[in-house]
Amino acid sequence: MTEAVEKLVKKSEDPNKWYLQLVLMAKLADYGPVRGTFAIRPYGFEIWERVQRDLDDRFKATGHKNAYFPLLIPESYIKKEADHVEGFDPELAWVTIGGREELEERLAIRPTSESIICAFYKNWIQSYRDLPVLINQWCNVLRWEKVTRPFLRTAEFLWQEGHTVHVTAEGAREETLRMLGVYKDCFYEAMAIPVLTGAKSPSERFAGAVETFTCEGLMGDGRALQAATSHDLGQNFARAFDITFLDENQDRVHPYQTSWGFSTRTIGALILVHGDDRGLKLPPRIAPTQAVVVPIWRGKNKGEVRREAEALYTELKDSGLRMEVDLDEEHSPGWKFNEHELRGVPVRVELGPKDIEKGQAVLVRRDTGEKEFVNRKELAGKLNGLMREIQQNMLRQAETFRDDNTRRAESYEQFKEIIAQKRGFVVAPWDGTKETEQKIKEDTKATIRLLPVEREEGEDLVSGKPGLTAIFARAY
Amino acid sequence: MTEAVEKLVKKSEDPNKWYLQLVLMAKLADYGPVRGTFAIRPYGFEIWERVQRDLDDRFKATGHKNAYFPLLIPESYIKKEADHVEGFDPELAWVTIGGREELEERLAIRPTSESIICAFYKNWIQSYRDLPVLINQWCNVLRWEKVTRPFLRTAEFLWQEGHTVHVTAEGAREETLRMLGVYKDCFYEAMAIPVLTGAKSPSERFAGAVETFTCEGLMGDGRALQAATSHDLGQNFARAFDITFLDENQDRVHPYQTSWGFSTRTIGALILVHGDDRGLKLPPRIAPTQAVVVPIWRGKNKGEVRREAEALYTELKDSGLRMEVDLDEEHSPGWKFNEHELRGVPVRVELGPKDIEKGQAVLVRRDTGEKEFVNRKELAGKLNGLMREIQQNMLRQAETFRDDNTRRAESYEQFKEIIAQKRGFVVAPWDGTKETEQKIKEDTKATIRLLPVEREEGEDLVSGKPGLTAIFARAY
Repeated sequence: MTEAVEKLVKKSEDPNKWYLQLVLMAKLADYGPVRGTFAIRPYGFEIWERVQRDLDDRFKATGHKNAYFPLLIPESYIKKEADHVEGFDPELAWVTIGGREELEERLAIRPTSESIICAFYKNWIQSYRDLPVLINQWCNVLRWEKVTRPFLRTAEFLWQEGHTVHVTAEGAREETLRMLGVYKDCFYEAMAIPVLTGAKSPSERFAGAVETFTCEGLMGDGRALQAATSHDLGQNFARAFDITFLDENQDRVHPYQTSWGFSTRTIGALILVHGDDRGLKLPPRIAPTQAVVVPIWRGKNKGEVRREAEALYTELKDSGLRMEVDLDEEHSPGWKFNEHELRGVPVRVELGPKDIEKGQAVLVRRDTGEKEFVNRKELAGKLNGLMREIQQNMLRQAETFRDDNTRRAESYEQFKEIIAQKRGFVVAPWDGTKETEQKIKEDTKATIRLLPVEREEGEDLVSGKPGLTAIFARAY
Repeated sequence: MTEAVEKLVKKSEDPNKWYLQLVLMAKLADYGPVRGTFAIRPYGFEIWERVQRDLDDRFKATGHKNAYFPLLIPESYIKKEADHVEGFDPELAWVTIGGREELEERLAIRPTSESIICAFYKNWIQSYRDLPVLINQWCNVLRWEKVTRPFLRTAEFLWQEGHTVHVTAEGAREETLRMLGVYKDCFYEAMAIPVLTGAKSPSERFAGAVETFTCEGLMGDGRALQAATSHDLGQNFARAFDITFLDENQDRVHPYQTSWGFSTRTIGALILVHGDDRGLKLPPRIAPTQAVVVPIWRGKNKGEVRREAEALYTELKDSGLRMEVDLDEEHSPGWKFNEHELRGVPVRVELGPKDIEKGQAVLVRRDTGEKEFVNRKELAGKLNGLMREIQQNMLRQAETFRDDNTRRAESYEQFKEIIAQKRGFVVAPWDGTKETEQKIKEDTKATIRLLPVEREEGEDLVSGKPGLTAIFARAY
């Protein structure tokens, strides 16, 4: 356990180092032999499984079914949609040899699956009766990225990609926004991450989409993270792949499509939003372990304390909590406290000989550090309630942080100052041109994160032309 | 819906055509553009999700955790274990270009993950305190197969692969057999497939294993299918990848490993074991839809029957059953009966005006074809009980079929005759040599499917030498 003796750098001192250290020390992930590839270790994967389950339930509740499409996409398919290939071509990995033979046509490992899925949809969709198609896929994808960081940007990553087909443009737009809402709910309710939602500017659209919507989170270091996106594809792919159907008037027309994705990148968001100098801080709804019993024994009473700790563990587990008990004999209680704080376990339950005598236990919250003595009989109820409270409090904390770091800029000088000194979200009018967007990016590294639904009129800070509200930030 | 008007060939007439037709007609899968690749359609995928959930619960109940390892394996890693590379090299697909550049070392898409996982385990395992490692991964793998068939043999397929590490040889052997048992339970209890279990002969071992155990199912056409395998890897991979740990005596030694896998191939087994001339027959525990309400209306009473059918659907759904109601107005009830039989829905609930009048509904079982009139008030209870009954009956039917098609051969003539005329499992002594195994294969296309735990002594039918029981069959 080399990781455990290492000391975590302070988040405020060196947020990048803190992030990379924490990922390894909490055993969330580890580096693979191929640049930009990672293993997601059991503790990290269990978080992902819980997020996945939460999201999958929401997909099914909104009428979606899962399916699975091939990993390998022939080059000719990728090339069918012009914008799409332009966007993804530089990042593709190509299979050129199979079964010891050179392939006639090289095959891309999917960077996203629009082009292969459209090839199937072309056959599956014949009539308006076949619509809507509401299909989702959980899978791995690969993008040959130059600079990588575990979870946040990796060559291979896990995600889900929804691909739906609709009779009308309105149907597709509704779906795009519905799934944006599903993502938002998952971020708020399961991950306690108060994302902002809105449209992307045209330059940040998904390659091939007519409109891209995004969930943007604000990380602890004041940078924004694009956490999930939902795309209205219009008829672009339907035209490129010649997907048509007979409508109610027996006319052969192109349908409208959407796609939407949410990836293991969100685990990075979870670390960055909630983590602190002590390590991870996990929202109870997705924490693999919600509470850990740490017995505090000395030589003579070890047997009794151990037995009581095990009994308490069983009792709390049976009450429906995801529990651990740390009976390790190699390390001190203090060492264990640090370790479970590093792992972000929402509550620690301390149990010593005095507590046993008094029929109590000590609860310590990871989110506030608060300590409370609780009667043993009330413990299960108290802990279950505490899970809801911590979940809510973590969301509140993150909302407060986000709101405290969302600032209006009244002049371009002020804009630059905020970005340089405080980061966070900056709210300012934008004239809608690529030119000002580009200038701001060059001057400040800030980009338009989203265009909110409610946009106010105002003067663009760069051009002085009439503009509408945009939200800027430096981003991951 | 081109599929629905097509007529399914009889299973007994042309089992191969029947299988391929059924896969398409029941919308389980569809052919991809790259040879040997397939999409698993929502109906097929939902079956897989239920099997997956069943198996994953069993893995977790036996102490395993899920994780995720990289898709791409450097050539040098694959080559580390000599038998392993010999076994898999002909089937590999190679990535040679990434991000528009030729790679220095080519990368294989995982055909199985021992070699990449061992690279991680080498770092994760230092001390006996780190053992056992009990990790499973759900993922896609790729093998460049020459002849492919949906589910049964595909280039890319989905599976789980468990990879565990133990202090002792006994620990690894116990795990190998434990997971063989977990697979067997899943086959029996969830899939109603009465597999036989036992060891493989040395020539059929997994590349790199010291012993391979298998679950073998008997398909409806009398051929066997290797449905899942569990491998005792001994120290072969630990040596090749230099995985060591400090034992309790502070000696640095190699650990013992296992791996075990279960894939979407089992969906093929499900089709072949239970399917009949009418189509699929799904065990209730993994059927996406357990019962379907089919209203029978004529013009004037349509409104009422429709309402009642919807009410009945809701009522049954609320009782915990996975229900559908078929309110389609394009097709006749007869057409719908065929369609849901083809899809293998365990029970059909017919509801016509007379039934409504009498406060009843008609239940029709897919497994026996039996029809029963049931009082509306007793319907939910009756149906829930019927699910257990059908599940048991399907297992019984399959066991009877298996037992009726398991024969002892007393002479090689008889052996050849059984394989040629009846197929099924043939029980005969084997002298343990490659030579007789090979001769039998050449003469009859039958292979040793497994060596049972209890083996009787007898004379090898080919060589006349002393032998022990082996079970032979022609296999998929």
